[in-house]
Amino acid sequence: MIKPQQRIITLTTDFGNEDNYAACMKGVILSINPHVTIVDNTHNLDSFDVEKAAFNILNMYSYYPEGTIHVAVVDPGVGSRRRSIIVSADGYYFVGPDNGIFSYLIEDCRKVQIYLATNRGYFLPEVSNTFHGRDIFAPVASQISLGTPPIEFGRKITRYKKLKLTKPSVKKNKLTGKVIYRDKFGNLVTNIESSYAAKILNINIGNFT
Amino acid sequence: MIKPQQRIITLTTDFGNEDNYAACMKGVILSINPHVTIVDNTHNLDSFDVEKAAFNILNMYSYYPEGTIHVAVVDPGVGSRRRSIIVSADGYYFVGPDNGIFSYLIEDCRKVQIYLATNRGYFLPEVSNTFHGRDIFAPVASQISLGTPPIEFGRKITRYKKLKLTKPSVKKNKLTGKVIYRDKFGNLVTNIESSYAAKILNINIGNFT
Amino acid sequence: MIKPQQRIITLTTDFGNEDNYAACMKGVILSINPHVTIVDNTHNLDSFDVEKAAFNILNMYSYYPEGTIHVAVVDPGVGSRRRSIIVSADGYYFVGPDNGIFSYLIEDCRKVQIYLATNRGYFLPEVSNTFHGRDIFAPVASQISLGTPPIEFGRKITRYKKLKLTKPSVKKNKLTGKVIYRDKFGNLVTNIESSYAAKILNINIGNFT
Repeated sequence: MIKPQQRIITLTTDFGNEDNYAACMKGVILSINPHVTIVDNTHNLDSFDVEKAAFNILNMYSYYPEGTIHVAVVDPGVGSRRRSIIVSADGYYFVGPDNGIFSYLIEDCRKVQIYLATNRGYFLPEVSNTFHGRDIFAPVASQISLGTPPIEFGRKITRYKKLKLTKPSVKKNKLTGKVIYRDKFGNLVTNIESSYAAKILNINIGNFT
Repeated sequence: MIKPQQRIITLTTDFGNEDNYAACMKGVILSINPHVTIVDNTHNLDSFDVEKAAFNILNMYSYYPEGTIHVAVVDPGVGSRRRSIIVSADGYYFVGPDNGIFSYLIEDCRKVQIYLATNRGYFLPEVSNTFHGRDIFAPVASQISLGTPPIEFGRKITRYKKLKLTKPSVKKNKLTGKVIYRDKFGNLVTNIESSYAAKILNINIGNFT
Repeated sequence: MIKPQQRIITLTTDFGNEDNYAACMKGVILSINPHVTIVDNTHNLDSFDVEKAAFNILNMYSYYPEGTIHVAVVDPGVGSRRRSIIVSADGYYFVGPDNGIFSYLIEDCRKVQIYLATNRGYFLPEVSNTFHGRDIFAPVASQISLGTPPIEFGRKITRYKKLKLTKPSVKKNKLTGKVIYRDKFGNLVTNIESSYAAKILNINIGNFT
């Protein structure tokens, strides 16, 4: 576990690269903890595509050192009654909306605790209806990077929004998966893990990412 | 006010994300102060759209801690006689061309001092006609992050280039503003502040960023 | 030469800004050296355009302080027999595929040593066939930022892949060069250096980047 001075916060959003939305979040984060390292994962997720975002984070988070805080803002429900949550999972933290964006990684982790982010004392003084990334998630994430324990932000919960995880299926030796997205190189990324395919088909297909 | 070791420099340009222009600026900055934190605001402003850039910075700068240095390079006049300036305003610094890009925030701040950047001793040894971001603004900003006071770079001035700030107008209870830009989500961002609209129309419209 | 705690790693790739590929590399780097400063040069090089990438790096690397590690991943040959190399040149380090991407800068430097990256003890435990950026280049670069000397990663070599460097030619006082790319502003960047043009044409054309 790295020290607070060396903590990392990653940002995963659908803000695009043209506006100042991510920069506002970074300003809020650095105002609270000027020592934290901020990493842009991507700001170019398709607007409101929570499933792709969930998949992106699932395949990225564990390359970071324990203690890293991953913030995600793909948030079509902002301003509605959807809740803000903090997930503590296998040494990592995740901050964002309770809209399923973290549900894939929650299934991937063994030791998971989920908390509401309801304590307004940790939010910006004024919370808008449209930009919880800046007003709630950024200050909460930065406070976590300083060592504030998740329970400080709100009560522990057990139920959370889950995305339907379309698992690959096998019928009569036919393996059926789903294409999650097409990357820049034209690769089709599916929900079929290589180890799964190898096991089901009883073949050795090597490792391909 | 944060210490020099924790200083932040933000970059706001129209360079795009395909070339090495921003990376060259960052190399110059880090060569002078390897401890500074560099934040990309955006490099995707419309080429030469000074008004949109001015508005972008106006709505972003104050989320950063005092002492932050905001560098802006939307600079259609580079190589002409337009001047390079440093603005010290309410604890923040701004470095860029004197083409109006800082004029909105200057009107927004109470305590403002403006200086020319003319002292070639702080520039790169060779100054090109096309890339003052790298050759002038980057080294000056990095020197400021080390604690060099603005007066070291050139004399104080009182006149500077102002953009016409199209203020919203009210006639016969009709409020008229201007759309500054359309963000990635299709939101039209106007020059009408919510507090202004509320006051004029005598309604409570809540806060909607 | 800056201290390990202040080391910089730059990333130059064709990954685009939509996926988590660069973020995975950054996680690997920060897991090994949480103090390193990571700078995105660009992730938007044309897919597999090694020549443009080589030119981009050539014109960028020397703005950084000595000791900086430049990682490049434009890598159409990944998974084939192309080699992974570390170039030590005039105080800088370069990590990437041996596909010519560093050949322009190698010609530009005086003191050059090239090493293979073959020591699997420094790679990620599992090396994929498609993503050496994450599995080989990122951990090797981060180890170099900690002070590990290049010879630790593999043996020294003398032959490496070179791109044909189309040099400008002069016939009957006619100067012929090649357009390498068109930047965002419509500028055509050629392989004709201004000093070269001035010398050949016996004119003083000033400095224009």
